[in-house]
Amino acid sequence: MIVDSAGAGALIEDYLRGLRVSDLPELEEAIRYSLLSGGKRIRPRLCLAAAVSAGGDPEPALPVAGAIEMVQAFSLVHDDLPALDDDDTRRGQPTSHVRYGEGVAVLVGDALLNGSHRLVIREVRPPELALAVAAELADGVAGMIDGQYLDVTAVSDPTVEQLARLHRLKTGALIGASVVSGALVGGATDLAPYRAFSLELGLLFQIVDDILDDGTEDEPSYVNLLGLERARELAVASHGRALELLAHVPGDTRELAGLTDQIANRRS
Amino acid sequence: MIVDSAGAGALIEDYLRGLRVSDLPELEEAIRYSLLSGGKRIRPRLCLAAAVSAGGDPEPALPVAGAIEMVQAFSLVHDDLPALDDDDTRRGQPTSHVRYGEGVAVLVGDALLNGSHRLVIREVRPPELALAVAAELADGVAGMIDGQYLDVTAVSDPTVEQLARLHRLKTGALIGASVVSGALVGGATDLAPYRAFSLELGLLFQIVDDILDDGTEDEPSYVNLLGLERARELAVASHGRALELLAHVPGDTRELAGLTDQIANRRS
Repeated sequence: MIVDSAGAGALIEDYLRGLRVSDLPELEEAIRYSLLSGGKRIRPRLCLAAAVSAGGDPEPALPVAGAIEMVQAFSLVHDDLPALDDDDTRRGQPTSHVRYGEGVAVLVGDALLNGSHRLVIREVRPPELALAVAAELADGVAGMIDGQYLDVTAVSDPTVEQLARLHRLKTGALIGASVVSGALVGGATDLAPYRAFSLELGLLFQIVDDILDDGTEDEPSYVNLLGLERARELAVASHGRALELLAHVPGDTRELAGLTDQIANRRS
Repeated sequence: MIVDSAGAGALIEDYLRGLRVSDLPELEEAIRYSLLSGGKRIRPRLCLAAAVSAGGDPEPALPVAGAIEMVQAFSLVHDDLPALDDDDTRRGQPTSHVRYGEGVAVLVGDALLNGSHRLVIREVRPPELALAVAAELADGVAGMIDGQYLDVTAVSDPTVEQLARLHRLKTGALIGASVVSGALVGGATDLAPYRAFSLELGLLFQIVDDILDDGTEDEPSYVNLLGLERARELAVASHGRALELLAHVPGDTRELAGLTDQIANRRS
């Protein structure tokens, strides 16, 4: 059970449903197919929760949370392509390229990535804040693309350090951007505690992901490298460290703590 | 012969060579393969020329010009993919996906698109100007993606109006963003004459493209729809209108006029 005192989940869904990315109805439909296909919305919720901890309201952080989720949707659509991870289904539904064809899926991802930047540029004010948020977002996306490149070209037998680097980029960069950009919009001036917390949170997210994928994936993972038992110990330790680091984050951190627990305890 | 009193071409090449997009040397090499593969750099030169006409120097417009060329490179890498235009060579060299594989080519395009936004966000100041430029860039990219979608899903037998709409988006949107964002950095406050001029310039660019492609492409074009002779008449008329509209653009427009003539008279 996750703390959701602010009704953040409903706020985010409503906001995402109200977004328009393309002027073409057919392309817009394909974009909405991927953007509105459910999911736990963990990253935008982290964004809103960080804004609240920094002393802000959730609502002004919604464009940033929306941009973060658009980036997440972009990365899934492109990563699912046959040339990358080649996944036919996601959350029980055909992936974008299966439903609309590969060419359209490439364009859907491109439109979501561009649309995420456009949303921050248009909706966040004052201008200095918009640029600070946009820079966090762009850095997060750059890290995520680097991570996906490492994944695509990975050696078959990485060390734990190589695996950690891959995940710090592929998963951690956007989780970090979610927390830090939310903190920025909430009015935070000292971003260091948010960065430290979100770095650990990204690691926790990935270890749990590997545990949940156990047996269904033959790619390098903490489970494959270290065994299931050791991976579970790592997850418990990482969960503890994340909560310790959260103690250095100011303000009302109940929502961030709830999301940390949800990431640690999720079943899918 | 093109006016290049400011040495704009060399400025742009040097600037592009100095850019770093990814922290991973191997991905960076694949990005540079596409970004530094030559080309006439017409869009970044339009950007610098518009800045000069608005009363600015070329140098402060370089990050914007660089971002524009990164967008152009992104669009070529993704459009060349087998699922889209399926082109194996560009300017006599293997395309990105032939050289590095489809998966890497998807990521190269993603990195260039994200990198273009990142460059404007980081390098253009003051913040209000950065946001105005970033908004022009994001709108231009959105139009370009819409245009590529129309191209991919095009009916086999479009009307001239449908063809014009497709090209206004696919080609015209980024040419418009090149001129208008350059004007912004140069200090222009009235963007209307730049918009009117660049709209015609985009049309001219596309008609000439179709004439140059005559016989080598079986897709819808002004030549296929109207015949070569009529397409040539349209190009002459559009060239004239572009120069008329340029007369309403303030300042020193010699470079813009030279680029307009180059677009009208190019042989490749």
